[in-house]
Amino acid sequence: MRVGELSRKTGVPVPTIKYYVREGLLPPGELTSRNQASYDETHERRLRLIRALLDVGGMRVAEIADVLAALDDPERPLHKVLGAAADRVGGASAAYDDAESAAARGIVADLVSRRGWRAQASNPAAVELAEALAAMARLGHGAFADVLDDYADAAEQVARADLGYLDRQVAVEDMVEGMVVGTVLGEAVFGALRRLAHVDASARRYGED
Amino acid sequence: MRVGELSRKTGVPVPTIKYYVREGLLPPGELTSRNQASYDETHERRLRLIRALLDVGGMRVAEIADVLAALDDPERPLHKVLGAAADRVGGASAAYDDAESAAARGIVADLVSRRGWRAQASNPAAVELAEALAAMARLGHGAFADVLDDYADAAEQVARADLGYLDRQVAVEDMVEGMVVGTVLGEAVFGALRRLAHVDASARRYGED
Repeated sequence: MRVGELSRKTGVPVPTIKYYVREGLLPPGELTSRNQASYDETHERRLRLIRALLDVGGMRVAEIADVLAALDDPERPLHKVLGAAADRVGGASAAYDDAESAAARGIVADLVSRRGWRAQASNPAAVELAEALAAMARLGHGAFADVLDDYADAAEQVARADLGYLDRQVAVEDMVEGMVVGTVLGEAVFGALRRLAHVDASARRYGED
Repeated sequence: MRVGELSRKTGVPVPTIKYYVREGLLPPGELTSRNQASYDETHERRLRLIRALLDVGGMRVAEIADVLAALDDPERPLHKVLGAAADRVGGASAAYDDAESAAARGIVADLVSRRGWRAQASNPAAVELAEALAAMARLGHGAFADVLDDYADAAEQVARADLGYLDRQVAVEDMVEGMVVGTVLGEAVFGALRRLAHVDASARRYGED
């Protein structure tokens, strides 16, 4: 199909599609004449993935480029691609080097070892977790660390659900894409659910009716 | 204390502090002479909250201004402030109006009614959840809705932990701030934990060792 039809099908404006091609997010179409290219279903699918990561996942174009590069590299084992996707999702926290940061890193190391998680202390998610806990401690909410195991139980349950869902994907190609979708969009899904559960819990406890 | 000392204590540069005052995020200091103001511990604490919401929560300055305005309004009931904080955290999804969006809104309405959650369909979190599910469906991952109850179980567990933590805060002032911290930073904490649990689960399943 021509770029105009690709644009109509996906709702992405033509200049935006061309921008994604320039930035390496979308493979170029097959040239059919000097200034016309032809696109197929793989472009359409990739374009929908890019828009989902942008709109729902809140990722930036450069981050998406990294994830897609990992996704397209056949040499990379599945769990490394998942790791790359997950790392891009994490916020870029400012690095601090104070007593709260040091204490929070210790709390995270204890948690990882207590739960037997196969994850390095240098993992970006572990670093981000420590930074979030340190920020809480700086605000006088260091005791939040006490509910960390309740959070970890819930996180394990979600991770099991994600892996169970991935198991049902047959083609490896679908599975890798499913990981990216699950990691990024699953985060948006869980965040929204948690806020809904908050609305319910606090309406029950503090609400008028 | 003078603005220089406030800057040293919090690590926030003086021009940034002045910017926060201009934008209404931070109350002005008490004028001690024509061009000198004095700040106290409430400024220090508020400044740490702003930085945490910015750095770890990934919120924008305008969003933080909204949340702080709600936090400072004694007329607003606790659960409305929590709601305002939660709404600001959600991503601003592009609004679609296709078959996938309509189906996803139905799935969310069913979920809310099945779980007996006291939340309106118009709640921003419900809207965001529907948009995330619709984005998945557009990518051929509509079956993800099947694991939604596993996610909801986990979200309820996290919400219970959050409310349990808030119960231990004595002063109402602390409690309201605790809600904001818990809603925004708790999201970062859970996101990081989920990614760690993923790293562990996929290393076990797909990893070499």
